[in-house]
Amino acid sequence: MEERKLRELLNSLSLDEKIGQLIQLSGEFFSAKDVSLGPQKKLGITKEMVDLCGSVMNVVGAKETHRIQDDNLKNKKHPIPLIFMSDIIYGLKTVYPIPLGLGATWDPDLIQKAYRNTAEEAYASGNQVTFAPMIDLARDARWGRVLESTGEDPYLNSRFAESMVKGFQEDLPKYGIASCIKHFAAYGAVESGREYNATDMSENRLRQYYLPSYKAAVDAGAKMVMSSFNTLNGVPVTGNKWILKDILRKEWNFDGIIISDYAAISELVAHGFAQDNKQASKLAMNATVDIDMKSPCYANELKPLVSEGELDEKKIDDAVWRVLKLKNELGLFEDPYRGSSEELEKKSVLTPEKRQLARKVSTEAMVLLKNKNNILPLNPKDNKKIALIGPYENEHELLGLWAVHGDRKETVTIEDGFKTYLNSDKLLTAKGTDILRDKAMFKGIGLNEEQIKKIVSSDAVEKENNDKALEAAQKADIIVFAGGEHTIESGEAGSRGNLTLPDNQLHLLNKLFELNKPIILVNISGRPMILTDIEPKLEAIIQAWFPGTEGGNAISDIIFGKANPSGRLSMSFPYAVGQLPVYYSQFSTGRSVRTSTHSSRFMSKYLDIPNDPLYPFGYGLSYSEVCYDNLRLSSKEMNGESDKIVATIDLQNKSNVDTTEIVQLYLQDKFASVV
Amino acid sequence: MEERKLRELLNSLSLDEKIGQLIQLSGEFFSAKDVSLGPQKKLGITKEMVDLCGSVMNVVGAKETHRIQDDNLKNKKHPIPLIFMSDIIYGLKTVYPIPLGLGATWDPDLIQKAYRNTAEEAYASGNQVTFAPMIDLARDARWGRVLESTGEDPYLNSRFAESMVKGFQEDLPKYGIASCIKHFAAYGAVESGREYNATDMSENRLRQYYLPSYKAAVDAGAKMVMSSFNTLNGVPVTGNKWILKDILRKEWNFDGIIISDYAAISELVAHGFAQDNKQASKLAMNATVDIDMKSPCYANELKPLVSEGELDEKKIDDAVWRVLKLKNELGLFEDPYRGSSEELEKKSVLTPEKRQLARKVSTEAMVLLKNKNNILPLNPKDNKKIALIGPYENEHELLGLWAVHGDRKETVTIEDGFKTYLNSDKLLTAKGTDILRDKAMFKGIGLNEEQIKKIVSSDAVEKENNDKALEAAQKADIIVFAGGEHTIESGEAGSRGNLTLPDNQLHLLNKLFELNKPIILVNISGRPMILTDIEPKLEAIIQAWFPGTEGGNAISDIIFGKANPSGRLSMSFPYAVGQLPVYYSQFSTGRSVRTSTHSSRFMSKYLDIPNDPLYPFGYGLSYSEVCYDNLRLSSKEMNGESDKIVATIDLQNKSNVDTTEIVQLYLQDKFASVV
Repeated sequence: MEERKLRELLNSLSLDEKIGQLIQLSGEFFSAKDVSLGPQKKLGITKEMVDLCGSVMNVVGAKETHRIQDDNLKNKKHPIPLIFMSDIIYGLKTVYPIPLGLGATWDPDLIQKAYRNTAEEAYASGNQVTFAPMIDLARDARWGRVLESTGEDPYLNSRFAESMVKGFQEDLPKYGIASCIKHFAAYGAVESGREYNATDMSENRLRQYYLPSYKAAVDAGAKMVMSSFNTLNGVPVTGNKWILKDILRKEWNFDGIIISDYAAISELVAHGFAQDNKQASKLAMNATVDIDMKSPCYANELKPLVSEGELDEKKIDDAVWRVLKLKNELGLFEDPYRGSSEELEKKSVLTPEKRQLARKVSTEAMVLLKNKNNILPLNPKDNKKIALIGPYENEHELLGLWAVHGDRKETVTIEDGFKTYLNSDKLLTAKGTDILRDKAMFKGIGLNEEQIKKIVSSDAVEKENNDKALEAAQKADIIVFAGGEHTIESGEAGSRGNLTLPDNQLHLLNKLFELNKPIILVNISGRPMILTDIEPKLEAIIQAWFPGTEGGNAISDIIFGKANPSGRLSMSFPYAVGQLPVYYSQFSTGRSVRTSTHSSRFMSKYLDIPNDPLYPFGYGLSYSEVCYDNLRLSSKEMNGESDKIVATIDLQNKSNVDTTEIVQLYLQDKFASVV
Repeated sequence: MEERKLRELLNSLSLDEKIGQLIQLSGEFFSAKDVSLGPQKKLGITKEMVDLCGSVMNVVGAKETHRIQDDNLKNKKHPIPLIFMSDIIYGLKTVYPIPLGLGATWDPDLIQKAYRNTAEEAYASGNQVTFAPMIDLARDARWGRVLESTGEDPYLNSRFAESMVKGFQEDLPKYGIASCIKHFAAYGAVESGREYNATDMSENRLRQYYLPSYKAAVDAGAKMVMSSFNTLNGVPVTGNKWILKDILRKEWNFDGIIISDYAAISELVAHGFAQDNKQASKLAMNATVDIDMKSPCYANELKPLVSEGELDEKKIDDAVWRVLKLKNELGLFEDPYRGSSEELEKKSVLTPEKRQLARKVSTEAMVLLKNKNNILPLNPKDNKKIALIGPYENEHELLGLWAVHGDRKETVTIEDGFKTYLNSDKLLTAKGTDILRDKAMFKGIGLNEEQIKKIVSSDAVEKENNDKALEAAQKADIIVFAGGEHTIESGEAGSRGNLTLPDNQLHLLNKLFELNKPIILVNISGRPMILTDIEPKLEAIIQAWFPGTEGGNAISDIIFGKANPSGRLSMSFPYAVGQLPVYYSQFSTGRSVRTSTHSSRFMSKYLDIPNDPLYPFGYGLSYSEVCYDNLRLSSKEMNGESDKIVATIDLQNKSNVDTTEIVQLYLQDKFASVV
């Protein structure tokens, strides 16, 4: 549609119609059934406003999106197509490793390809916007959402932010999907690692460490930004004019859509920032939040605010204009399905090519943390028996919490993968134990006894599982233990105060240690876990994250040497909870343990634990030995335009195994006006 | 001296003489021996500058201060008296509980009296300035220096800051001592609770929570301020013009002396803030740091900075003027000993009256954390045998790390105290175990094998100790376990990542638990410890801090009911390390576990530990039952000058035990432009 016509459309809309464009509801509001007594009543908005709603969240699939769009366009005075937005964070149907694993690839180009594939699946399935990438800097492993972050480094995060946005959007406007980056801003710094908690930092820290990845994503052309749940320096972001309007819109010239996080506008009241939903709506509008995600605020409060002279309708027009512009840019006025169809969907999702790339990405995300005596890779031709033990032995749930549209049935399990390498006479398997920590935690997240019973084994069953595992282990030469976190232990609202393996896994591992056989840990987790106590007793450790649809193949490729591990941590694995937050770029302080001349007590340290994490940012082993030599710097060129120095180094693979080497270069000011 | 004459003196000084006034050296520089090869060489300054040095740190005692002063005044062109400054933090010879215990009294008036007594001891002993109070807000129990803080609340800290400054200074200029508050600013917020680490926060948090106590102390007339070790928002405080000059000097009109913390000026280089000591000196001078505490900076660098035109000599004059003014105000030009003498010292220190007040303060600092079935107080007339067990059973080290001039021999031990209540036939005693956690920690603080051997028992001795304790416990009806931290585990550079009791104490306690006898824990510690695991098995818990010279008496007064515990925590006792930092005034967030309507997963919490500490700020039990009733608020008076509301409540002591009740009133904005 021409811009002039779009403007005419805006001008022709009633205030109610305009407000409708600024609200987003979830799928159940558009079900075939009468929703007036369920979701609609619960949210407290009228049927009229539901009918005028401009966008839909988390409905995926060509069939259902077509049906909802058809309904929407019927009998409308001004038929404006809905726009479908979803949590498609690290894959839709072909699921990649969690972003913390993607970060470990250190390969933004590869991830751009992966996200382009995801965009293809999403496009075919009727979605136009993804609430991704999440690019919050993460330095505290207690926070469950570190799962969605590429890690602790602003530079690396920025490169991934760009590549992910480009991957989603590179075929826009015709194909692909628009990227809504989140969570703006600094959500990753929630205090004490507790989900939804307050964030507080100096402007210096904010700009040097936390903002760069968002800025990189905006500069890469992200169409939307999601305002975060947290307060930033005492002011909730969703009502924070300084961060949204002054920095994002004015400094960075962002003229796309700002959408609130889920119900975040009404939560301005719970924060103690707004008196009621009406004031919350006004504060959010003044902060230029365009779309209200699933709260009763804009739907009910904007009209009275305008009529009472509390809000200039011009602000609503500006917000609606941004929404209409995106819909128009994506061609929805011409084709409200935007080329999606069930047929295209079938052809696009989970194709062999997509699976192949997922396997490659998942392989490159693995980080080899320990490999004593080069026990890995295992040679499948050796005449050795291998016991694959642990709760993830044959588990399909390898996708992690935020792969909400992924199909667990399509997951390749670790056992599936092993079977492609090993004959059945060499492979012994046993689950050995539940993955779950304890019942208390499940009560904590609101499961009832019935539900808990389903997922937690009884003592008798647990003992039987243990016994079976020990029996398998006794018969084997090498034990591969596939353990880690349960899916629900990380991700959104997955904050934890204790980051070791669950007690029942430790219990079983301790029994296995008594066998004095080599044990390889494959650790499945959504975060850096604390492996300090068990590390000395393990022969090898592979950090496998939630590895995605092709996880079992990727893990097997690493273990049996088809692939040489090249992943490097993008977030530190702590030595102990007492270090948190811990990250590699901490200031040296005036009394560094590395350089201080003070007596050994009066240095910046703990008495009982080291300052350093168990495995730092950048760490990871491989099967080959790469030597670095002859580092040289170019002479400094300064000609007004260029003031760069080129660092060059010679690498030599001294092994007979092909390898990918991630070369890391760290820079530090020797001194500066800010340390 | 008249101000005019003082100004003439300043004008008559050479640049070297002026610079001398801006350096502070420790006692060994003024020993009778030749120091050129020892301390002087180590610090790297000339004998001439040592001779011109204007102030002395941590020399205490009339005899020694007189000797040093006499030496100083000899053969000088311009004889300017030295000023003696010391770490007299919570008592000189009569030592009070650590400030975290003083905070638990919630009684600033009482502490003012205590600090006045300390001023008397310090005055008589030849000191004119104390590096106290330390008034950093403390929210993270990992940090060892929480010992020196009155806690986590800006209001309570501010009231204590005032009363402590007034206590030291109330007899100025004639008697008493000048107060140097510390550590300005926000040192209490060191990241990850690690000593000397960086501090970073918004200006909002800084001004609302961290600055008020310093401001209260400055307004109460504190003569000096110490600049802290930490960076604040990327800039080390000791070179931070914004916090020192713009806020402290300009906004708050502070015209007293700013002194650096120990060697902090030269540490600007280690911070990566200054290129070398010369630049460090310039940056510190520009931030208006007047005195360089024990670094080679000012002594060596100021003169070349002036001669090279890098530093305006006027800045040096301003600093020297502030130093001379304080010396003059305290009357040192008229009497360089300022009335101190060995005779007065003997009459002033550790008098029965001072001990009496210390006993009262120590008693009021005790916090009763648990008292199941009212097992406490114990009646000494009951026909019951009591076993006093644990490393603090008869330990004189009850003073804590920062009572550097206290005399351990003068300490009343817990056993001493018990004996005043119990006949020897009712009292069984045994140390039971070393207090020390493990050898690794002692290596960590730089002790060698020899030194460690002296303080850590062998396994055989430990077993014998255990056996003796169990034997005593078996014969007793009630067990009092006196345990906790070792002195060196808290205080400066006493950061720890694990806050439970040491393993050896837990080991012994677990054996004692098996006896199924009531166990009362007296916990001696410099910080909130984590008692979560043992709490259910204990009958009663008394938090005794490092209780000071009269500690043993105060603990016994509480246990045997001579005193009714009235202390209330001024800092939260965490449930787990994974909560840290934890404090009562955390923001509600948008998804509080107390009010959220979200499903129980999607709330601001951890999956595996509670949000709340085990014992919160304000918590404490007593032996009586006090009922609160009939809360009423006065009508709001607003007449331009007064807009206060008076809250009134009726209290009734329903028990037959006299009691002191600390009434707490908490206020919260329902909503505001900053949450």
